[in-house]
Amino acid sequence: MAKVAIMGYGTVGSGVYDIIKDNACRVADNAGEKIEIKYILDIRDFDDHPEKELFTKDVNDIINDSEVTVVAEVMGGLHPAYEFTKSMLEAGKSVVTSNKELVATYGTELLAIAEEKNVNYLFEASVGGGIPVIRPLSRCLAANNITRIAGILNGTTNYILHEMFTNNKSFETALSDAQAMGYAERNPAADIEGHDACRKIAILSSLASGTEVDCERIATEGIADITLDDVHAAEAAGGVIKLIGYAEFDGGKVYSHVAPMFIKNENMLSGINGVMNGILITGDAVGDVMFYGAGAGKLPTASAVVADIVDSAIHASRRKIIGWKKARGDVMKSTGNDFAYLVRCENTEDEVKAVTNADIILCENGTVVFMTEPMSLDSCELLKSKLGKVKSAIRVLN
Amino acid sequence: MAKVAIMGYGTVGSGVYDIIKDNACRVADNAGEKIEIKYILDIRDFDDHPEKELFTKDVNDIINDSEVTVVAEVMGGLHPAYEFTKSMLEAGKSVVTSNKELVATYGTELLAIAEEKNVNYLFEASVGGGIPVIRPLSRCLAANNITRIAGILNGTTNYILHEMFTNNKSFETALSDAQAMGYAERNPAADIEGHDACRKIAILSSLASGTEVDCERIATEGIADITLDDVHAAEAAGGVIKLIGYAEFDGGKVYSHVAPMFIKNENMLSGINGVMNGILITGDAVGDVMFYGAGAGKLPTASAVVADIVDSAIHASRRKIIGWKKARGDVMKSTGNDFAYLVRCENTEDEVKAVTNADIILCENGTVVFMTEPMSLDSCELLKSKLGKVKSAIRVLN
Repeated sequence: MAKVAIMGYGTVGSGVYDIIKDNACRVADNAGEKIEIKYILDIRDFDDHPEKELFTKDVNDIINDSEVTVVAEVMGGLHPAYEFTKSMLEAGKSVVTSNKELVATYGTELLAIAEEKNVNYLFEASVGGGIPVIRPLSRCLAANNITRIAGILNGTTNYILHEMFTNNKSFETALSDAQAMGYAERNPAADIEGHDACRKIAILSSLASGTEVDCERIATEGIADITLDDVHAAEAAGGVIKLIGYAEFDGGKVYSHVAPMFIKNENMLSGINGVMNGILITGDAVGDVMFYGAGAGKLPTASAVVADIVDSAIHASRRKIIGWKKARGDVMKSTGNDFAYLVRCENTEDEVKAVTNADIILCENGTVVFMTEPMSLDSCELLKSKLGKVKSAIRVLN
Repeated sequence: MAKVAIMGYGTVGSGVYDIIKDNACRVADNAGEKIEIKYILDIRDFDDHPEKELFTKDVNDIINDSEVTVVAEVMGGLHPAYEFTKSMLEAGKSVVTSNKELVATYGTELLAIAEEKNVNYLFEASVGGGIPVIRPLSRCLAANNITRIAGILNGTTNYILHEMFTNNKSFETALSDAQAMGYAERNPAADIEGHDACRKIAILSSLASGTEVDCERIATEGIADITLDDVHAAEAAGGVIKLIGYAEFDGGKVYSHVAPMFIKNENMLSGINGVMNGILITGDAVGDVMFYGAGAGKLPTASAVVADIVDSAIHASRRKIIGWKKARGDVMKSTGNDFAYLVRCENTEDEVKAVTNADIILCENGTVVFMTEPMSLDSCELLKSKLGKVKSAIRVLN
């Protein structure tokens, strides 16, 4: 019998409760023992809950109860999630979490405390919701040097872009529809501006490189500037635009960005539609592998949290080695990489041909669309200044 | 320092050797210790090999060497792989394997010996080559009741079908091209007739249900009867045909088959092209997740074997719980399930309309193509006998 506590009874927390109750047999079979919820921590009242006696508002009830060996932190936000997690780890309890902001910001410190205390700090649910990706990246691809990660890591922006492509909606209309469907928050900045995807690619890059990749140093662009003209240009070029969390790994260096990228229809990532997520990982031995599924949502995310609870229960006597150790590696802005660019400009065809021998994809209504050879960001800026009338230049995922 | 042995120095075995040598740092980082190859077992001579002193023809050298804690069985075939694996497990060594035939046939017995001896028997490479799927299914989806698995599990047949669809080749031409490319063996029966896919869906179903699913009881059809007329019909219906290893799980029962199935273009599996594999797994909490990548090949497969070696080294003191325990559950032929069928017949439109109110998809050159409502195999047989001129009836993956 493993006794666990849930910190935070919101969407994910109540999902964790439901899955442990509803799938008790499968969970127990996999854990090798029964999993019992002993506490639920929340500042709100849940007097109508069928197990209202489980609720507490005092985190010390959990910290001081030596019977509790695993704690699910599903509160979200940095504080007090950080302080509570630290206290639990220091009290010798394993912590599992869906809190990408916390893992991306304080992961290095919390992983070090977990190691010191010989307990687990697991965070499968922090990237890709219910999609197994953290553990496969750490363990199943353990024999590979990871060379690249390119992921559609945010369902809200993927839904908006998909609506722009398939239903010809403007960004503004697609956003307000996403809000109406409950796929976007009232304040959608964290999603739209790419910060959510940034936290997730930071976590994946840290795992792949073994070194902390600091969010703050990842060049991050959102999707608010993508127009239906860009959609039209991408379709003419035989592809779509997706918000991509991108990282390349080379000789201990990490080149990472979050930005809208052009993806050809042949690439598996082009088929990731609606709110779904997909993460394409390239290893030197395995080549490309992709993981696909619901990147958010109550039960998908909760199912990943419960899987980590099961794993912590199994590994109670031995630490699961998933994480990274070194703080602050060389995180390079991805400007260090060469990309081809899909360029849309209002020059004449002759003006374009005067400065580049790129293939013209589209030439209509005063707009020229062309794709460049791979080049540095500096070279792209130079090309843009030569043309003077460039409306957009979108990096191409090769 | 973990000392390992490789049994079989063919394609996968030499890949295992190469990866341990080339990616020594990454492998050691992940295992927490250095991995050293102490023996390579093969009946052939490798006198030109740079480490020819590692080779032995006597399996007892490995069995009797207590320093060797992990053995990679990458010989393939049932015998002597079965006897050698059993001896290694009984000698208290963990065994990792890419041998799907052995796992599908003797897995239950070998897993029981591993449990008794408190060692690991791991087989990530047996399904999907380098694609992480065994461990994600067992561990990451541990909180889910798995309801369905549908997988493109064989690269050879997927290559042939993809060539038929994209290049309008006949089955025979596509097969001989696949042989010329090295994607199909000279005797391609195991691939073409679906036996390879059958072994893999048997392994996945056993894991998902916790009960041995016997290959012999899985209704298995190959792709040799698929014609360009079927390709044409599928295109008209807005999809493709893929060889699918299929299993549904309901109340302890497993309904499984291997057969060509019609897949709509919206389904992620429709985009798995060439020799690639894709496995779509549905859980009651997580919904659909898909795993994609190279399902075969020297380095992809070897990278999964090495990941299992790393995992065995990490878990040397504690068994990794991946597998199934119960022998012989209720494996039902998938005839127990209802499927829609994509039917191609040489009846007149009026004859078709007289026996079914299905939507007619195509009506040209004396051929009618239509899609039925979901129905049992018996109902489909009845429909076929009523029409009398049915050329093909392909199950639809919904």
